[in-house]
Amino acid sequence: MTAYSHEKSRALFERAAKVIPCGIYGHFSPAPLIPPSDYPFYAESGAGSRFVDVDGNSFIDYMCAYGPMVLGYAHKKVDAAAAKEHKKGSCLSAPAPVMVELAEYLVDLVFGMDWAFFAKNGNDVTTYAVMVARAATGRKKVVAIKGGYHGVAPWTQGLGHHGVLEEDCGHILRIAWNDFDAFASLVEKHPGQIAAFIASPYHHPVYADNQYPAPGYWQKVQKLCNQKGIVLIVDDIRCGFRLNMAGSHVFFGFEPDLVCFCKAIANGYPISALMGKGALLTDAAKVFYTGSYWFSSAPMAAALATLAELKRINGPELMLAFGEKLCKGLAETAKSHGYDLKVSGAPSMPYLRITDDPSQMLHQKWCGLCTSMGAYFTSHHNWFVSTAHNETDLTDTLKIADRAFEMLKKEKR
Amino acid sequence: MTAYSHEKSRALFERAAKVIPCGIYGHFSPAPLIPPSDYPFYAESGAGSRFVDVDGNSFIDYMCAYGPMVLGYAHKKVDAAAAKEHKKGSCLSAPAPVMVELAEYLVDLVFGMDWAFFAKNGNDVTTYAVMVARAATGRKKVVAIKGGYHGVAPWTQGLGHHGVLEEDCGHILRIAWNDFDAFASLVEKHPGQIAAFIASPYHHPVYADNQYPAPGYWQKVQKLCNQKGIVLIVDDIRCGFRLNMAGSHVFFGFEPDLVCFCKAIANGYPISALMGKGALLTDAAKVFYTGSYWFSSAPMAAALATLAELKRINGPELMLAFGEKLCKGLAETAKSHGYDLKVSGAPSMPYLRITDDPSQMLHQKWCGLCTSMGAYFTSHHNWFVSTAHNETDLTDTLKIADRAFEMLKKEKR
Repeated sequence: MTAYSHEKSRALFERAAKVIPCGIYGHFSPAPLIPPSDYPFYAESGAGSRFVDVDGNSFIDYMCAYGPMVLGYAHKKVDAAAAKEHKKGSCLSAPAPVMVELAEYLVDLVFGMDWAFFAKNGNDVTTYAVMVARAATGRKKVVAIKGGYHGVAPWTQGLGHHGVLEEDCGHILRIAWNDFDAFASLVEKHPGQIAAFIASPYHHPVYADNQYPAPGYWQKVQKLCNQKGIVLIVDDIRCGFRLNMAGSHVFFGFEPDLVCFCKAIANGYPISALMGKGALLTDAAKVFYTGSYWFSSAPMAAALATLAELKRINGPELMLAFGEKLCKGLAETAKSHGYDLKVSGAPSMPYLRITDDPSQMLHQKWCGLCTSMGAYFTSHHNWFVSTAHNETDLTDTLKIADRAFEMLKKEKR
Repeated sequence: MTAYSHEKSRALFERAAKVIPCGIYGHFSPAPLIPPSDYPFYAESGAGSRFVDVDGNSFIDYMCAYGPMVLGYAHKKVDAAAAKEHKKGSCLSAPAPVMVELAEYLVDLVFGMDWAFFAKNGNDVTTYAVMVARAATGRKKVVAIKGGYHGVAPWTQGLGHHGVLEEDCGHILRIAWNDFDAFASLVEKHPGQIAAFIASPYHHPVYADNQYPAPGYWQKVQKLCNQKGIVLIVDDIRCGFRLNMAGSHVFFGFEPDLVCFCKAIANGYPISALMGKGALLTDAAKVFYTGSYWFSSAPMAAALATLAELKRINGPELMLAFGEKLCKGLAETAKSHGYDLKVSGAPSMPYLRITDDPSQMLHQKWCGLCTSMGAYFTSHHNWFVSTAHNETDLTDTLKIADRAFEMLKKEKR
């Protein structure tokens, strides 16, 4: 295994830096999140579980486009469904029948949800969810989790981020994950003022171990929300369809009022969805919310094809099983070299971290080494697996990981 | 000409109403904007300037998907460019080279703009523009136009809309269009506090005549912005590439700091862009802003193909010329029946209104009649033409309009 080189990626990035803010911005930004020397910046193509960068290097992809890829890149069934709609125009002056079919399919699929609303980004639907909750309750305050990510709208970024005003997030109250007492205190402190509680099904921050709900946590949160008329919003954008086809709330055994989906819903085609309980349908209808391309049929057809395929093959179980083998194999490989690799979060989107590494530089270096040999890992963010990841990928990945630990040890000496 | 029937549209809508807020929401919502009996709710396919609804009725489309369709539906060159990227995966773990190519192309194309940032919706980039302006100036207030539309984020919807808090729009100061003195007064009243001025190139509200800038208006606004360090943002989402390929600010002869594009940029493929002056590149880079599908290559390739084709055929000139013939023909037809049809805004996206009709019900009825015979007009919103609209469309449209005026007269008696 020789380390990949990245001449073409670097050259493109130099051009980009002149005409695009950051060159590459947001969660795809190479800096400061990853050691640039080890990572490709531009991809040429993808197929199944792998992508090839512009320098011709191939990667087993454990980021899956940061979630959207769930059945494998360039998936024939999904692409065919979308192509059929593109041939018919896709973005027309009225929606296509597939919009109704997709809503009906989702209502049938996702437990406890009676309606669906479609947009483009996760942020579109988390913001819409908060607006619906405020419209429904006539209240302003929203309880969220410290370190919880719900998109880039100022209200979710929070104070301290560039371009965000204190007024944007003055009614967002942040508490620690799994701290039910903190929620109960806020409810007591702000009687009749809390519109919503929003959180992901489990806590998946960056740069920190991911955390499942403590036993009874969600059930207590749900009970208090129900008692106090607080709208319970689950941001299932990252976990959705990687834990359970009926929604991650089924995986954890509770019933929210609103659920946000995006990412895995259409294998990369741009669509997000807010789903809700029947009691909120009228309030959802009151909020004016729309976008230029939100009625395009191709992503809706792609979503139908993706969900049907995921259901047919029991995608979440496959991904959980593969992720478990992957994490177990990586932890064992680490151990054989004297490292302790801690795994947290769901196996289908695990967060890994070398312990005894407070600066996380050792872990970053190891992820970089793996990437530079073809196993695309990031060090700061949970990974994702897909149903396209297979035994060959696993074997290849463990070999790369083994070699990377060996190199890490040598470097330390 | 017999009026179209809409059994299948109605049946689908009844299903939709049970599982989707409003059945169809936002600007595509049939109620209360259009008389439902005359309009199709669901489209089956589109080609060129026309679309066919689920009942098999064909329409010459003067809404163009509310703007995105600019070269005609199912455009071969654009679709081929997008399909090539979809085949390669499109939504991968790193952006494709086409992202850099598109940014470079736009910087070369759009006058005075040095960089480009890509997102999905118009709302994404208007909100980002405001955040960039606030980050750059350290100020909070934004001057906008009464009746100006910049998307659905709470700050732009404004107070009184469901789900919007006073805190969301407390720093948005609304003034009348073309009232430079009102802007100057605000600048005086809030010294050093105004981050940005945002407006469309000309005023295109709903339910009201559209208005061009008064002579010298934009130049005075620009001068004051430059003097006071206020970021001048043009929302070119609706007009962009329908007035001038170099940006609508060139059409009106001024130089903004930031320009927002969407709609016509990729002939229906989901992409929007914020472009800006070099002086704002560092500030733009500071604001964290991203979305799940923003790096997908297919819409970027579609944008490159769309812009190149629009440039090659001089799209804006074609659309302005066709629009002028259309509006002139319609006004003459109206006159021959004793009606006065007032045309405002750019001919490539004209707003029409029957005068002496304060309730606008006569105009609504006429638009409905035209639509029910195959010329898809809305009564409350500016229309759009495309480069695919041709002489046959014009002849057919004028015939339909003639018949509709005749029916309108009979109904009145």
